Amino acid sequence: MSSLARPVEELIRCLVRLPGIGEKSATRLALHMLRAPQHEMEALAGAILAVKRKIRLCSRCFNFTDEDPCRICCDPKRESGVLCVVEEPGDLMALEGSGHYRGQYHVLHGVISPLDGVGPDDLRIAELTQRVEREGVREVILATNPSVEGEATAMYLAKLLKPLGVRVTRIAYGLPVGADVQYADHVTLGKALENRRDL
Amino acid sequence: MSSLARPVEELIRCLVRLPGIGEKSATRLALHMLRAPQHEMEALAGAILAVKRKIRLCSRCFNFTDEDPCRICCDPKRESGVLCVVEEPGDLMALEGSGHYRGQYHVLHGVISPLDGVGPDDLRIAELTQRVEREGVREVILATNPSVEGEATAMYLAKLLKPLGVRVTRIAYGLPVGADVQYADHVTLGKALENRRDL
Repeated sequence: MSSLARPVEELIRCLVRLPGIGEKSATRLALHMLRAPQHEMEALAGAILAVKRKIRLCSRCFNFTDEDPCRICCDPKRESGVLCVVEEPGDLMALEGSGHYRGQYHVLHGVISPLDGVGPDDLRIAELTQRVEREGVREVILATNPSVEGEATAMYLAKLLKPLGVRVTRIAYGLPVGADVQYADHVTLGKALENRRDL
Repeated sequence: MSSLARPVEELIRCLVRLPGIGEKSATRLALHMLRAPQHEMEALAGAILAVKRKIRLCSRCFNFTDEDPCRICCDPKRESGVLCVVEEPGDLMALEGSGHYRGQYHVLHGVISPLDGVGPDDLRIAELTQRVEREGVREVILATNPSVEGEATAMYLAKLLKPLGVRVTRIAYGLPVGADVQYADHVTLGKALENRRDL
Protein backbone atom coordinates (compact mmCIF):
# COMPACT_ATOMS: atom_id res chain seq x y z
CA MET A 1 0.00 0.00 0.00
CA SER A 2 3.06 2.23 -0.34
CA SER A 3 1.31 4.05 -3.20
CA LEU A 4 -1.26 5.53 -0.82
CA ALA A 5 -0.91 9.08 0.42
CA ARG A 6 0.67 9.02 3.90
CA PRO A 7 -2.25 10.68 5.75
CA VAL A 8 -4.62 8.08 4.27
CA GLU A 9 -2.27 5.25 5.30
CA GLU A 10 -2.11 6.68 8.82
CA LEU A 11 -5.91 6.95 9.02
CA ILE A 12 -6.32 3.33 7.88
CA ARG A 13 -3.73 2.26 10.47
CA CYS A 14 -5.76 3.99 13.23
CA LEU A 15 -9.08 2.55 12.01
CA VAL A 16 -7.76 -1.02 11.83
CA ARG A 17 -7.09 -0.89 15.58
CA LEU A 18 -10.82 -0.52 16.27
CA PRO A 19 -12.70 -3.71 17.15
CA GLY A 20 -14.42 -5.47 14.26
CA ILE A 21 -12.71 -3.31 11.64
CA GLY A 22 -10.40 -5.18 9.27
CA GLU A 23 -8.16 -3.87 6.52
CA LYS A 24 -11.02 -3.72 3.98
CA SER A 25 -13.53 -1.97 6.25
CA ALA A 26 -10.85 0.48 7.33
CA THR A 27 -10.07 1.32 3.71
CA ARG A 28 -13.76 1.76 2.93
CA LEU A 29 -14.22 3.99 5.98
CA ALA A 30 -11.16 6.05 5.07
CA LEU A 31 -12.45 6.53 1.50
CA HIS A 32 -15.81 7.58 2.90
CA MET A 33 -14.12 10.04 5.24
CA LEU A 34 -12.19 11.52 2.32
CA ARG A 35 -15.44 12.22 0.49
CA ALA A 36 -17.62 13.16 3.44
CA PRO A 37 -18.37 16.83 4.15
CA GLN A 38 -15.65 18.56 6.16
CA HIS A 39 -18.05 19.57 8.96
CA GLU A 40 -19.27 15.99 9.42
CA MET A 41 -15.75 14.67 9.89
CA GLU A 42 -14.88 17.54 12.20
CA ALA A 43 -17.95 16.61 14.27
CA LEU A 44 -16.77 12.98 14.42
CA ALA A 45 -13.21 13.89 15.46
CA GLY A 46 -14.62 16.36 17.99
CA ALA A 47 -17.00 13.74 19.41
CA ILE A 48 -14.14 11.26 19.87
CA LEU A 49 -12.04 13.85 21.70
CA ALA A 50 -15.05 14.99 23.74
CA VAL A 51 -15.79 11.54 25.17
CA LYS A 52 -12.14 11.12 26.13
CA ARG A 53 -12.13 14.52 27.83
CA LYS A 54 -15.58 14.60 29.44
CA ILE A 55 -16.57 11.04 30.30
CA ARG A 56 -15.78 9.76 33.80
CA LEU A 57 -17.21 6.95 35.92
CA CYS A 58 -20.20 7.82 38.08
CA SER A 59 -18.98 7.70 41.68
CA ARG A 60 -22.15 5.89 42.71
CA CYS A 61 -22.98 3.28 40.02
CA PHE A 62 -19.70 3.42 38.02
CA ASN A 63 -21.44 3.84 34.68
CA PHE A 64 -19.83 6.15 32.12
CA THR A 65 -21.08 9.69 32.66
CA ASP A 66 -20.30 13.35 32.01
CA GLU A 67 -21.99 14.51 35.24
CA ASP A 68 -21.46 12.99 38.67
CA PRO A 69 -23.66 11.33 39.89
CA CYS A 70 -24.91 10.15 36.51
CA ARG A 71 -28.32 10.85 34.98
CA ILE A 72 -29.76 7.51 36.05
CA CYS A 73 -28.56 7.90 39.66
CA CYS A 74 -30.04 11.42 39.77
CA ASP A 75 -33.38 10.55 38.16
CA PRO A 76 -36.07 10.82 40.87
CA LYS A 77 -38.51 8.87 38.68
CA ARG A 78 -36.38 5.73 38.90
CA GLU A 79 -37.22 3.15 41.52
CA SER A 80 -34.79 3.25 44.44
CA GLY A 81 -34.21 0.13 46.49
CA VAL A 82 -33.59 -2.08 43.43
CA LEU A 83 -30.05 -2.48 42.07
CA CYS A 84 -29.23 -4.26 38.82
CA VAL A 85 -25.61 -5.46 38.79
CA VAL A 86 -23.95 -5.67 35.35
CA GLU A 87 -20.45 -6.47 34.15
CA GLU A 88 -19.95 -3.56 31.77
CA PRO A 89 -21.53 -0.22 30.79
CA GLY A 90 -22.54 -1.87 27.50
CA ASP A 91 -24.74 -4.32 29.41
CA LEU A 92 -26.40 -1.40 31.19
CA MET A 93 -27.07 0.25 27.82
CA ALA A 94 -28.67 -2.95 26.50
CA LEU A 95 -30.94 -3.23 29.56
CA GLU A 96 -31.90 0.43 29.25
CA GLY A 97 -32.58 -0.13 25.58
CA SER A 98 -35.04 -2.89 26.48
CA GLY A 99 -37.10 -0.37 28.47
CA HIS A 100 -38.06 -3.06 30.98
CA TYR A 101 -36.09 -1.83 33.97
CA ARG A 102 -36.75 1.28 36.02
CA GLY A 103 -34.45 0.75 39.02
CA GLN A 104 -30.82 1.70 39.65
CA TYR A 105 -27.65 0.05 38.35
CA HIS A 106 -24.22 -0.97 39.57
CA VAL A 107 -21.42 -1.62 37.06
CA LEU A 108 -18.74 -4.09 38.22
CA HIS A 109 -16.33 -3.36 35.34
CA GLY A 110 -15.48 -7.01 34.79
CA VAL A 111 -16.07 -10.46 36.23
CA ILE A 112 -14.15 -12.60 38.66
CA SER A 113 -11.79 -14.61 36.50
CA PRO A 114 -8.85 -16.23 38.33
CA LEU A 115 -7.29 -17.33 35.01
CA ASP A 116 -7.06 -13.68 33.94
CA GLY A 117 -5.90 -12.63 37.39
CA VAL A 118 -9.12 -10.77 38.15
CA GLY A 119 -10.26 -11.16 41.75
CA PRO A 120 -13.15 -9.54 43.68
CA ASP A 121 -10.88 -6.67 44.73
CA ASP A 122 -10.35 -5.69 41.09
CA LEU A 123 -14.08 -5.08 40.63
CA ARG A 124 -16.51 -2.56 42.15
CA ILE A 125 -17.73 -5.15 44.67
CA ALA A 126 -16.75 -3.36 47.91
CA GLU A 127 -18.70 -0.33 46.62
CA LEU A 128 -21.67 -2.59 45.88
CA THR A 129 -21.90 -3.95 49.44
CA GLN A 130 -21.53 -0.39 50.78
CA ARG A 131 -24.43 0.73 48.59
CA VAL A 132 -26.60 -2.19 49.69
CA GLU A 133 -25.95 -1.28 53.33
CA ARG A 134 -26.34 2.50 52.99
CA GLU A 135 -29.07 2.93 50.38
CA GLY A 136 -31.70 0.64 51.89
CA VAL A 137 -31.62 -1.68 48.90
CA ARG A 138 -34.40 -4.29 48.92
CA GLU A 139 -33.39 -6.32 45.88
CA VAL A 140 -30.17 -6.89 43.95
CA ILE A 141 -30.70 -8.30 40.43
CA LEU A 142 -27.57 -10.05 39.19
CA ALA A 143 -27.39 -9.49 35.43
CA THR A 144 -23.86 -10.73 34.75
CA ASN A 145 -23.45 -12.73 31.53
CA PRO A 146 -24.60 -16.36 31.29
CA SER A 147 -20.95 -17.45 30.99
CA VAL A 148 -18.80 -19.48 33.39
CA GLU A 149 -17.24 -16.33 34.84
CA GLY A 150 -20.50 -14.39 34.90
CA GLU A 151 -22.19 -17.26 36.71
CA ALA A 152 -19.34 -17.64 39.22
CA THR A 153 -19.40 -13.90 39.90
CA ALA A 154 -23.17 -14.02 40.46
CA MET A 155 -22.74 -16.92 42.92
CA TYR A 156 -19.98 -15.03 44.75
CA LEU A 157 -22.11 -11.89 45.00
CA ALA A 158 -25.17 -13.86 46.18
CA LYS A 159 -23.14 -15.37 49.03
CA LEU A 160 -21.76 -11.98 49.95
CA LEU A 161 -25.03 -10.04 49.80
CA LYS A 162 -27.61 -12.42 51.26
CA PRO A 163 -26.24 -12.10 54.85
CA LEU A 164 -26.97 -8.35 54.53
CA GLY A 165 -30.68 -9.21 54.47
CA VAL A 166 -31.29 -8.20 50.85
CA ARG A 167 -33.23 -10.20 48.26
CA VAL A 168 -30.78 -11.42 45.59
CA THR A 169 -32.13 -12.53 42.21
CA ARG A 170 -30.56 -13.70 38.96
CA ILE A 171 -31.88 -12.85 35.46
CA ALA A 172 -33.52 -15.83 33.79
CA TYR A 173 -31.88 -18.41 31.58
CA GLY A 174 -33.99 -19.81 28.75
CA LEU A 175 -34.64 -19.68 25.03
CA PRO A 176 -34.21 -16.26 23.45
CA VAL A 177 -37.37 -14.92 21.82
CA GLY A 178 -37.51 -15.94 18.16
CA ALA A 179 -35.20 -18.91 18.70
CA ASP A 180 -35.83 -22.44 17.49
CA VAL A 181 -36.15 -25.32 19.96
CA GLN A 182 -34.66 -27.59 17.30
CA TYR A 183 -31.43 -25.61 17.13
CA ALA A 184 -31.04 -24.56 20.77
CA ASP A 185 -27.94 -25.86 22.56
CA HIS A 186 -28.33 -28.59 25.20
CA VAL A 187 -27.45 -26.47 28.20
CA THR A 188 -29.94 -23.75 27.27
CA LEU A 189 -32.67 -26.34 26.65
CA GLY A 190 -31.93 -27.92 30.02
CA LYS A 191 -32.20 -24.53 31.74
CA ALA A 192 -35.39 -23.71 29.81
CA LEU A 193 -37.00 -26.93 31.03
CA GLU A 194 -35.76 -26.48 34.58
CA ASN A 195 -37.08 -22.90 34.75
CA ARG A 196 -40.45 -23.70 33.16
CA ARG A 197 -43.46 -21.70 34.36
CA ASP A 198 -47.10 -22.59 34.98
CA LEU A 199 -49.48 -21.02 32.51
CA MET B 1 -31.14 5.95 24.95
CA SER B 2 -31.79 9.12 26.94
CA SER B 3 -29.94 7.58 29.90
CA LEU B 4 -26.63 7.79 28.05
CA ALA B 5 -24.21 10.59 28.77
CA ARG B 6 -24.65 13.28 26.11
CA PRO B 7 -21.07 13.10 24.70
CA VAL B 8 -21.48 9.33 24.24
CA GLU B 9 -24.82 9.83 22.49
CA GLU B 10 -23.23 12.42 20.22
CA LEU B 11 -20.34 10.07 19.38
CA ILE B 12 -22.74 7.23 18.54
CA ARG B 13 -24.75 9.62 16.34
CA CYS B 14 -21.58 10.51 14.41
CA LEU B 15 -20.47 6.88 14.07
CA VAL B 16 -23.85 5.69 12.79
CA ARG B 17 -23.46 8.02 9.80
CA LEU B 18 -20.43 6.02 8.60
CA PRO B 19 -21.10 3.37 5.94
CA GLY B 20 -21.68 -0.16 7.20
CA ILE B 21 -21.96 0.98 10.84
CA GLY B 22 -25.35 0.37 12.45
CA GLU B 23 -26.62 1.30 15.88
CA LYS B 24 -25.04 -1.76 17.53
CA SER B 25 -21.61 -1.41 15.91
CA ALA B 26 -21.62 2.29 16.71
CA THR B 27 -22.35 1.57 20.37
CA ARG B 28 -19.61 -1.06 20.49
CA LEU B 29 -17.14 1.32 18.84
CA ALA B 30 -18.09 4.11 21.23
CA LEU B 31 -17.59 1.83 24.25
CA HIS B 32 -14.21 0.79 22.86
CA MET B 33 -13.25 4.42 22.37
CA LEU B 34 -14.21 5.18 25.98
CA ARG B 35 -11.82 2.47 27.19
CA ALA B 36 -9.03 2.94 24.65
CA PRO B 37 -5.86 4.82 25.63
CA GLN B 38 -6.18 8.58 25.31
CA HIS B 39 -3.21 8.86 22.91
CA GLU B 40 -4.70 6.25 20.54
CA MET B 41 -7.98 8.13 20.26
CA GLU B 42 -6.17 11.44 19.83
CA ALA B 43 -4.22 9.80 16.99
CA LEU B 44 -7.48 8.65 15.37
CA ALA B 45 -9.16 12.06 15.66
CA GLY B 46 -5.97 13.70 14.38
CA ALA B 47 -5.77 11.30 11.42
CA ILE B 48 -9.37 12.06 10.44
CA LEU B 49 -8.71 15.81 10.54
CA ALA B 50 -5.40 15.37 8.71
CA VAL B 51 -6.93 13.63 5.69
CA LYS B 52 -9.57 16.33 5.42
CA ARG B 53 -6.90 19.03 5.59
CA LYS B 54 -4.10 17.51 3.55
CA ILE B 55 -5.64 15.27 0.90
CA ARG B 56 -6.32 16.72 -2.53
CA LEU B 57 -6.80 15.20 -5.98
CA CYS B 58 -3.65 14.69 -8.04
CA SER B 59 -3.83 17.16 -10.95
CA ARG B 60 -2.61 14.46 -13.33
CA CYS B 61 -4.37 11.18 -12.44
CA PHE B 62 -7.02 12.52 -9.98
CA ASN B 63 -6.19 9.99 -7.29
CA PHE B 64 -6.28 11.16 -3.67
CA THR B 65 -2.89 12.55 -2.69
CA ASP B 66 -1.09 14.83 -0.26
CA GLU B 67 1.57 15.85 -2.81
CA ASP B 68 0.88 16.98 -6.36
CA PRO B 69 1.56 15.13 -8.63
CA CYS B 70 0.93 12.01 -6.56
CA ARG B 71 3.47 9.35 -5.65
CA ILE B 72 2.43 7.02 -8.45
CA CYS B 73 2.60 9.76 -11.11
CA CYS B 74 6.06 10.77 -9.83
CA ASP B 75 7.47 7.26 -9.56
CA PRO B 76 10.10 6.87 -12.32
CA LYS B 77 10.03 3.08 -11.88
CA ARG B 78 6.46 2.86 -13.11
CA GLU B 79 5.84 2.11 -16.75
CA SER B 80 4.81 5.21 -18.67
CA GLY B 81 2.70 4.82 -21.78
CA VAL B 82 0.11 2.57 -20.10
CA LEU B 83 -2.92 4.11 -18.39
CA CYS B 84 -5.38 2.15 -16.28
CA VAL B 85 -8.75 3.92 -16.05
CA VAL B 86 -10.77 3.30 -12.88
CA GLU B 87 -14.03 4.67 -11.49
CA GLU B 88 -12.88 5.50 -7.98
CA PRO B 89 -9.71 5.82 -5.88
CA GLY B 90 -10.80 2.65 -4.04
CA ASP B 91 -10.54 0.71 -7.31
CA LEU B 92 -7.01 2.03 -7.79
CA MET B 93 -6.12 0.90 -4.26
CA ALA B 94 -7.45 -2.60 -4.97
CA LEU B 95 -5.44 -2.84 -8.21
CA GLU B 96 -2.32 -1.60 -6.41
CA GLY B 97 -2.96 -4.14 -3.68
CA SER B 98 -2.96 -6.92 -6.27
CA GLY B 99 0.61 -5.96 -7.20
CA HIS B 100 -0.02 -6.92 -10.84
CA TYR B 101 0.07 -3.49 -12.41
CA ARG B 102 3.10 -1.22 -12.82
CA GLY B 103 1.72 1.46 -15.15
CA GLN B 104 -0.04 4.76 -14.51
CA TYR B 105 -3.67 5.39 -13.52
CA HIS B 106 -6.50 7.73 -14.34
CA VAL B 107 -9.42 8.10 -11.92
CA LEU B 108 -12.75 9.10 -13.50
CA HIS B 109 -14.55 9.78 -10.19
CA GLY B 110 -17.73 8.05 -11.25
CA VAL B 111 -19.36 6.43 -14.25
CA ILE B 112 -21.66 7.68 -16.96
CA SER B 113 -25.14 7.17 -15.58
CA PRO B 114 -27.93 9.13 -17.28
CA LEU B 115 -30.46 8.02 -14.64
CA ASP B 116 -28.35 9.70 -11.94
CA GLY B 117 -27.75 12.70 -14.16
CA VAL B 118 -24.05 11.90 -14.58
CA GLY B 119 -22.79 12.60 -18.10
CA PRO B 120 -19.28 12.46 -19.60
CA ASP B 121 -18.67 16.11 -18.67
CA ASP B 122 -19.12 15.29 -14.97
CA LEU B 123 -16.19 12.85 -15.08
CA ARG B 124 -12.46 13.31 -15.70
CA ILE B 125 -12.84 12.25 -19.33
CA ALA B 126 -11.63 15.43 -21.04
CA GLU B 127 -8.48 15.19 -18.90
CA LEU B 128 -8.08 11.56 -19.98
CA THR B 129 -8.11 12.33 -23.71
CA GLN B 130 -5.67 15.19 -23.08
CA ARG B 131 -3.30 12.81 -21.28
CA VAL B 132 -3.55 10.22 -24.05
CA GLU B 133 -2.64 12.90 -26.61
CA ARG B 134 0.12 14.58 -24.60
CA GLU B 135 1.81 11.73 -22.74
CA GLY B 136 2.41 9.38 -25.66
CA VAL B 137 0.13 6.71 -24.19
CA ARG B 138 0.33 3.36 -26.04
CA GLU B 139 -2.43 1.51 -24.16
CA VAL B 140 -5.46 2.47 -22.10
CA ILE B 141 -6.77 -0.35 -19.88
CA LEU B 142 -10.43 0.22 -18.99
CA ALA B 143 -10.95 -1.12 -15.47
CA THR B 144 -14.42 0.27 -14.74
CA ASN B 145 -16.73 -2.10 -12.84
CA PRO B 146 -18.45 -5.01 -14.61
CA SER B 147 -21.83 -3.27 -14.11
CA VAL B 148 -24.21 -1.81 -16.67
CA GLU B 149 -22.85 1.70 -16.08
CA GLY B 150 -19.23 0.58 -15.91
CA GLU B 151 -19.63 -1.32 -19.17
CA ALA B 152 -21.36 1.61 -20.88
CA THR B 153 -18.63 3.97 -19.72
CA ALA B 154 -15.96 1.60 -21.04
CA MET B 155 -17.72 1.45 -24.43
CA TYR B 156 -18.00 5.25 -24.52
CA LEU B 157 -14.29 5.66 -23.71
CA ALA B 158 -13.26 3.05 -26.28
CA LYS B 159 -15.12 4.94 -29.01
CA LEU B 160 -13.58 8.20 -27.91
CA LEU B 161 -9.99 6.99 -27.54
CA LYS B 162 -9.51 4.58 -30.46
CA PRO B 163 -9.50 7.39 -33.08
CA LEU B 164 -6.50 8.83 -31.20
CA GLY B 165 -4.51 5.79 -32.31
CA VAL B 166 -4.14 4.23 -28.86
CA ARG B 167 -4.68 0.57 -27.99
CA VAL B 168 -7.79 0.30 -25.78
CA THR B 169 -8.29 -2.85 -23.68
CA ARG B 170 -10.88 -3.98 -21.14
CA ILE B 171 -10.09 -6.05 -18.04
CA ALA B 172 -11.35 -9.63 -18.36
CA TYR B 173 -14.73 -10.99 -17.35
CA GLY B 174 -14.79 -14.54 -16.01
CA LEU B 175 -15.01 -16.68 -12.93
CA PRO B 176 -13.30 -15.23 -9.86
CA VAL B 177 -10.50 -17.41 -8.47
CA GLY B 178 -11.86 -19.81 -5.87
CA ALA B 179 -15.41 -19.65 -7.28
CA ASP B 180 -17.62 -22.61 -8.06
CA VAL B 181 -18.85 -23.25 -11.61
CA GLN B 182 -21.99 -24.76 -10.11
CA TYR B 183 -22.94 -21.55 -8.32
CA ALA B 184 -21.75 -18.98 -10.85
CA ASP B 185 -24.44 -16.77 -12.38
CA HIS B 186 -25.46 -17.28 -15.99
CA VAL B 187 -24.02 -14.07 -17.37
CA THR B 188 -20.61 -14.69 -15.79
CA LEU B 189 -20.59 -18.27 -17.07
CA GLY B 190 -21.50 -17.04 -20.55
CA LYS B 191 -18.64 -14.52 -20.45
CA ALA B 192 -16.23 -17.14 -19.10
CA LEU B 193 -17.07 -19.45 -22.02
CA GLU B 194 -16.91 -16.65 -24.57
CA ASN B 195 -13.50 -15.47 -23.29
CA ARG B 196 -11.99 -18.96 -23.03
CA ARG B 197 -8.29 -19.28 -23.74
CA ASP B 198 -6.19 -21.92 -25.51
CA LEU B 199 -3.96 -23.87 -23.18
